[in-house]
Amino acid sequence: MSTSCNPLSREGSAVGISELVERSGVPLATVKYYIRSRLLMPGESTSATRSVYTEAHLRRLALIRALTDVAGLSVQKAGVVIGLIDNPQTNIFESLGKAVAALPPYPHARESPDAALEYPRARALLQRVGQRYDPHFAAVAQLERALAAAEAAGLPMSDDRARRYAEHIMAIARVELAGMPNDSVQNAIEYAVLGTSLYEPVILAMRRLAHQDLAAQMFADDDENT
Amino acid sequence: MSTSCNPLSREGSAVGISELVERSGVPLATVKYYIRSRLLMPGESTSATRSVYTEAHLRRLALIRALTDVAGLSVQKAGVVIGLIDNPQTNIFESLGKAVAALPPYPHARESPDAALEYPRARALLQRVGQRYDPHFAAVAQLERALAAAEAAGLPMSDDRARRYAEHIMAIARVELAGMPNDSVQNAIEYAVLGTSLYEPVILAMRRLAHQDLAAQMFADDDENT
Repeated sequence: MSTSCNPLSREGSAVGISELVERSGVPLATVKYYIRSRLLMPGESTSATRSVYTEAHLRRLALIRALTDVAGLSVQKAGVVIGLIDNPQTNIFESLGKAVAALPPYPHARESPDAALEYPRARALLQRVGQRYDPHFAAVAQLERALAAAEAAGLPMSDDRARRYAEHIMAIARVELAGMPNDSVQNAIEYAVLGTSLYEPVILAMRRLAHQDLAAQMFADDDENT
Repeated sequence: MSTSCNPLSREGSAVGISELVERSGVPLATVKYYIRSRLLMPGESTSATRSVYTEAHLRRLALIRALTDVAGLSVQKAGVVIGLIDNPQTNIFESLGKAVAALPPYPHARESPDAALEYPRARALLQRVGQRYDPHFAAVAQLERALAAAEAAGLPMSDDRARRYAEHIMAIARVELAGMPNDSVQNAIEYAVLGTSLYEPVILAMRRLAHQDLAAQMFADDDENT
């Protein structure tokens, strides 16, 4: 993963903490806090008063910053994701699900885990479009809430619309999954959490801009016809 | 627009405020606050102490609730949207843009209006995929921020990915625009703001579920091969 900050020249060139602070742009107190919180691995002690840091530390700091500053995770939730990256379970599919479930939005307090088997709108939609899903996956509850809200406001999801959404969203997801690294479970999880959270705002902004482009076309046509 | 609450039987059957409260599910103090804030039109006075309310009030309350409770707008921002619905400008394209710009996410304080002409990543992407856009539209700034964040975290948008995203997002937007009512500017704006905000979480949840479906398939294939 490239970083926006000045990279250390190579894996072997270990540096002191002041240089890590300078190159990462993360303040010293914050770096120390991340080490205490086990988000960042400690440096290697070279004497009683000095530890050294490598490219791996710089890369980890960029990941923490992306999760907290950009994706908006609390340090505690970022710790869950990083714990899954550092100690992946043997089942990568399950690790991926848990990592993505650590991203916002979070379930409402009133939703008990047992409610996972309810979600009638989400289940009907997923069955209609023929997707496999784990009913305990957080996104099922998110979908149910979103569909219920649209229904309550008088814009319920129609079967036809669901089918078309699913087709195009699946095509987008295929492009994204094709880019997932398959060299290690760690890299796959890191890609999944960053890709999920960083590309959500890209997709939403592009959708609003697509509406604007289509509306410009529609009203330009109207002008020509009148 | 249908509502989740019990509708009044027909346009002519005006009711008192207590019945409006009961049927809308919105507390009396909140109804009065919406009237004072000009989000809800006052009832028609039938005596010095009594006003009556119609289906239009019930429908407006459902809209306010969708904007504030579901889309997360402040009462002040909901007022901007409702002002555009009540007093649409002659240019519907401009009214639509202003209404959608009143929805979150909002520009960062440090972004001046003059910065609208910057946004190099967003502009490059939109030009590459051949979309028309107004550089002052809030979604251009959103797209720039989102692309910059992805780049900083080491997952920059590639040209190929941008092209495929644009293709499928445009297809989704076409389905959505096709459903926009064309009987009045008011109804078109209401559809645009509700559709934008209520369907964003639907799309995001469906994307996470599409990832899960594809990952299940990928790892099932792996199991078969080993």
